[in-house]
Amino acid sequence: MSSCYKSWILLTGFILFYVAYLLFGAFVFSIIERPVEDKLKRDIQVLKEEFLNQSCVNATSLENFLERVLQANKYGISILPNSSASSNWDLASSLFFANTLVTTVGYGHTTPLSDTGKAFSIFYALLGVPFTMLVLTACVQRLMHLVTYGPISMCRQKIGLDPLAATAVHFAILLLLVVLGFFVVPAVVFSYIEDTWSFLDAIYFCFITLCTIGLGDYVPGEKPGQNFRSLYKISVMVYLFVGLMMMYLVLRAFHRMADLHGLTSFFQLPHCDEDIEEDKEPIIEAGHEDQHEHEAEASAKPLDPASQTYNTIKR
Amino acid sequence: MSSCYKSWILLTGFILFYVAYLLFGAFVFSIIERPVEDKLKRDIQVLKEEFLNQSCVNATSLENFLERVLQANKYGISILPNSSASSNWDLASSLFFANTLVTTVGYGHTTPLSDTGKAFSIFYALLGVPFTMLVLTACVQRLMHLVTYGPISMCRQKIGLDPLAATAVHFAILLLLVVLGFFVVPAVVFSYIEDTWSFLDAIYFCFITLCTIGLGDYVPGEKPGQNFRSLYKISVMVYLFVGLMMMYLVLRAFHRMADLHGLTSFFQLPHCDEDIEEDKEPIIEAGHEDQHEHEAEASAKPLDPASQTYNTIKR
Repeated sequence: MSSCYKSWILLTGFILFYVAYLLFGAFVFSIIERPVEDKLKRDIQVLKEEFLNQSCVNATSLENFLERVLQANKYGISILPNSSASSNWDLASSLFFANTLVTTVGYGHTTPLSDTGKAFSIFYALLGVPFTMLVLTACVQRLMHLVTYGPISMCRQKIGLDPLAATAVHFAILLLLVVLGFFVVPAVVFSYIEDTWSFLDAIYFCFITLCTIGLGDYVPGEKPGQNFRSLYKISVMVYLFVGLMMMYLVLRAFHRMADLHGLTSFFQLPHCDEDIEEDKEPIIEAGHEDQHEHEAEASAKPLDPASQTYNTIKR
Repeated sequence: MSSCYKSWILLTGFILFYVAYLLFGAFVFSIIERPVEDKLKRDIQVLKEEFLNQSCVNATSLENFLERVLQANKYGISILPNSSASSNWDLASSLFFANTLVTTVGYGHTTPLSDTGKAFSIFYALLGVPFTMLVLTACVQRLMHLVTYGPISMCRQKIGLDPLAATAVHFAILLLLVVLGFFVVPAVVFSYIEDTWSFLDAIYFCFITLCTIGLGDYVPGEKPGQNFRSLYKISVMVYLFVGLMMMYLVLRAFHRMADLHGLTSFFQLPHCDEDIEEDKEPIIEAGHEDQHEHEAEASAKPLDPASQTYNTIKR
């Protein structure tokens, strides 16, 4: 119980440190990018006034004007008057950007404008991506008891199902709940909040996001005059993090079921014998930490491609 | 040797099937999206002509015009004359899009315009993402012999290094070679081919791509009048696939080294004892396939968060 207590304290510490890391990133991005954005916004407004003041509009002047408008738009700066009020680099938006960076979703609806911002993005993601995975994995490890082992064990004891049937039934229910709770219900909410999104658009957004593809054609909270924009952005961040955790949980449950049903070997390519020999050799000979020996031996086997796949897909 | 031969045949089959899956996706995307794109392109040209023909340009008419221009631009359709020649949905571009979808990079510089395209994207990625991971993992499994076990074994036999030093030296050399071969050299090439990219831009592109963040602010082969555009796009696809494979290989080598140096336990949160009990129980009791017992036991332990992290980060 003491180790369990320590484990939860550590996990809470991890999550708090993760939130601090995101806030730090948001703060730095905001400081670096805000002035560049403001300058570009002013430039584009001057450009618009100049364009409106000229006596005759010909194709060439229009094209030159549009080229600069589209260039600014690429960096998330719109020339339209109703979208100029909100910044892409206020604290909430920067936090959202930092979050999409470390989760590898990367919508790209706003991108760093300055060289400093680009360089900082590289270093921030270099630490942030592994850190996110570490926090996600630690959370999933704790949730597995509550969501997988507990219910399966209950199925077997209460209903008297055999282990194979219990894991299959459990997986089907888990999948259904995740699809409902993290795709269908959020899609209904998004299509309600975002006027221009159909239900299909919202489902497409949820799917593209939770697979970490992040095309960025639909990004919540980007319409002009969005109510409670900061709160909404932070809610989407929480959805993203918990959603990724659930995707990972489903994959681990699937992997577990596949192992139990012997499906893993079905997906597995036959090994080269020489690979296995080579692979086992160095770690077994090393044996410098007895308590890790079993673990090392297990990891010394060429990892099962299917199992890795289920662990790794969509992160 | 026979199982090794079979394994290589199967891997080749896998890769060929993967290429066929990408071509199939490209073909379908091209068929679905090309007509929608053509219509939007015509609309935007008509809009431009109408705008140029009007007698006086005021702020309102300009804003209405710009709103539609920016909307079209969001879907990758530019109003500028020099960019209208190439399509976003010709076969090479569709193939590139399909590839960024299944690798979860998702630049989003082009996105499906039609509902059919969006629905197809969901189903295509649902199969494609796990399939890509399977192919990547199978390739990495084969490469590990050539790139990791072989050189480490050689280091130990030829130079007489102990296993710890050999893996550390090997990892440092591998990391250096991957940074050079998949970041620095490609960045030099990209900054040479793409006129507007600085070296920092190109490094930023390589990093954002190979982490599968894929912001899409820099996408190769998108400038108007790009020479050998199709060939260039396909080369970038190959770079992306091989690059992801190398990232994965580095992570596996790092994981292996961390295991051997006892670093894994450093990153590992202490387990809850009850979790371990619950976790082991169902699979051990199941024991329906003897040959899988050891494997099942190994996977029944709550997976080490650090090890999973190194296996999973950046896919």
